[in-house]
Amino acid sequence: MKIESVDFFYLSMPEVLDIGDGSQDALLVRVRASGGYDGWGECEASPLVSIASLICPMSHSACKPVQDSVLGQTVETPEDIRHIGDLVRRNSLDLLQADHTLSGIDVALWDLLGRRRGEPVYKLLGYAEAHPKTPYASQLFGDTPELTFEAAKKVAVAGYTAAKFGWGPYGVGSVEADAEQVRAAREGLGDGGIPLIDAGTVWGEDVEAAAARLPALEEADVLWLEEPFVSGALDAYRELASRVARDSSLSLAAGEGCHNTYMARHLIDHGKVGYIQIDAGRIGGLTAAKQVADHAAAKGVTYVNHTFTSHLALSASIQPYAGLKDHLICEYPVELKPLAVELTRERILPGSDGLIRLPDGPGLVVTPDPAAIRRYLVDAEIVVNGRTLYRSPDLP
Amino acid sequence: MKIESVDFFYLSMPEVLDIGDGSQDALLVRVRASGGYDGWGECEASPLVSIASLICPMSHSACKPVQDSVLGQTVETPEDIRHIGDLVRRNSLDLLQADHTLSGIDVALWDLLGRRRGEPVYKLLGYAEAHPKTPYASQLFGDTPELTFEAAKKVAVAGYTAAKFGWGPYGVGSVEADAEQVRAAREGLGDGGIPLIDAGTVWGEDVEAAAARLPALEEADVLWLEEPFVSGALDAYRELASRVARDSSLSLAAGEGCHNTYMARHLIDHGKVGYIQIDAGRIGGLTAAKQVADHAAAKGVTYVNHTFTSHLALSASIQPYAGLKDHLICEYPVELKPLAVELTRERILPGSDGLIRLPDGPGLVVTPDPAAIRRYLVDAEIVVNGRTLYRSPDLP
Repeated sequence: MKIESVDFFYLSMPEVLDIGDGSQDALLVRVRASGGYDGWGECEASPLVSIASLICPMSHSACKPVQDSVLGQTVETPEDIRHIGDLVRRNSLDLLQADHTLSGIDVALWDLLGRRRGEPVYKLLGYAEAHPKTPYASQLFGDTPELTFEAAKKVAVAGYTAAKFGWGPYGVGSVEADAEQVRAAREGLGDGGIPLIDAGTVWGEDVEAAAARLPALEEADVLWLEEPFVSGALDAYRELASRVARDSSLSLAAGEGCHNTYMARHLIDHGKVGYIQIDAGRIGGLTAAKQVADHAAAKGVTYVNHTFTSHLALSASIQPYAGLKDHLICEYPVELKPLAVELTRERILPGSDGLIRLPDGPGLVVTPDPAAIRRYLVDAEIVVNGRTLYRSPDLP
Repeated sequence: MKIESVDFFYLSMPEVLDIGDGSQDALLVRVRASGGYDGWGECEASPLVSIASLICPMSHSACKPVQDSVLGQTVETPEDIRHIGDLVRRNSLDLLQADHTLSGIDVALWDLLGRRRGEPVYKLLGYAEAHPKTPYASQLFGDTPELTFEAAKKVAVAGYTAAKFGWGPYGVGSVEADAEQVRAAREGLGDGGIPLIDAGTVWGEDVEAAAARLPALEEADVLWLEEPFVSGALDAYRELASRVARDSSLSLAAGEGCHNTYMARHLIDHGKVGYIQIDAGRIGGLTAAKQVADHAAAKGVTYVNHTFTSHLALSASIQPYAGLKDHLICEYPVELKPLAVELTRERILPGSDGLIRLPDGPGLVVTPDPAAIRRYLVDAEIVVNGRTLYRSPDLP
């Protein structure tokens, strides 16, 4: 197959709120190849900026628009997809946004190849089978401990044993206020529930600020403290990891900010995280994500998907570690905005045993609903020196 | 002063060629503050993509347009500029391009503050004086060893003792072909000349491919091998550094791809480079660059500017290490396109002793020429849902 077009669909809720909810807009990618094949993916990125990086005028030989490395390429094998990623990284070396942009394209290419071959993506990635995952309910902290307690009770009643609470007021107030939030989450989930806490990089690289929160986390049997620091703060991660009480169940988790495999490897090798969380829509797609999963498995670190958007992104994000039986846990967003809920025709729902299973079928199986695209499509246009370089594509 | 406007001017040569020459376009930044003060900076980035990141609609609380963290802020002290950078990094955490975009804004803020205070930027950065630097002529390899030899002879005649050759055919052909290019550079510079070689990340993270080139580099007394690998390949850097013959003058150099201080620190601490090359137009501006200079000085690594564009960018890029007397060498582009040459009213020329000195005066001293902006301005427009979010600003 030859790649004939790469189309970016910018979707958004009518109103985007100033909250830590990444499901308020979306950048949907369609790659169309000869023979009538389509593949779909999603970039976890600022839609307009990634659109600009797809079509911008060339600045020099290492700063080309992403589409220049994709259009006209041949896709018959997984190796061809890897080759396209290498081309993008080389030709857009000085275009910082390119990793985010490539991510959705790479996802769409694997979907395309899977559909063409009639095989699920995880098989193309080299796994014999997809093992079920234990979903954790992913949501924001309540504004008060009471609201967090109610939210935790709700997901426990809904059948989740594990639940993550993040962002909101956590980390910005006092150590005691944060401890109350953690206790509220713990109590709401009940005995046997597994709380996960996401600090959303709130402490930058301030080890002492993070370390002050450890006792409350250890006491509440929290499984992981996520993103105490920004992704690059390797020394701070390593230092904090060494401060966790040895008899506690607590580990550090990080990685969603990684936009290449090196960053993830460094968090594992130098930052000493116990869980590496990869967003396939940011790190460069499934190709890069699978490389991280291989490295994590080799180093005894647990791979976890990072997903806070649609079920197309959810399907994509699970494929890279679907075959890693012991890497059990899986992020499962439960508070999605209508855009993200309605975006796909198929949905991935927990089974009667509470576990998540990838649907079997060609590609990613989960496909966009044209009606939802129509409902949420943003009309965008970029014109440079009188030439229209981008206009929202016609509806599929 | 309160920041009243941030204007991005996208400039380009009429034709942009598919060569490794970053001076073919430019993104000029003007920050205007109350009291009639202006500051100017330059982003080393794809102009259209950085424009999009300045004005894009918010995606969520950690993916806001860069301008939201800048407009309306107060700038009276260096601490205020640092605060604005922290705001951008926090509010645009998930907007990958933001670091490149912040870079030009941060440079303009230091220029603004310097003009307001009547002080050169290097003083605001904490240096008592600016020491002269030894410029190296920075250029591309010739397509053949003969052309490289001629180019080397030319810069030697022009009075440069050090010259860097990069990109072009180097690293993509055979080991012997590369050796011939290096010998041609060495011979063209003559005895006492200092050749520097820039591989432009051509070997990805392939240590053996790079190591095969070491003997020719050592034999030609090359001072540094620049960017054998991509910035993230820390393990490859460390491994290659350990393979350099101990009695040779060769070190590894890297860093131009760093878009935050962590990446640069990792290249120093884990990658074992001998020279850290920072592009102030990419790493987050002068604030971030100065932090790297401090770290490099503390670790015995030599800081070098990375500059391949206008003399405004050149002035900016020297400020962060102007006061480091022993960090002698300085990148000095000698093959700029007319756009980059004509862009500034003032130019920084080697003195009669061949050394480069920062001009003394308020801010960066080097200022854009309105006539050049008029000549090279690209007309760009971004419209989202009927609202014009960006249109090339009126000429200054």
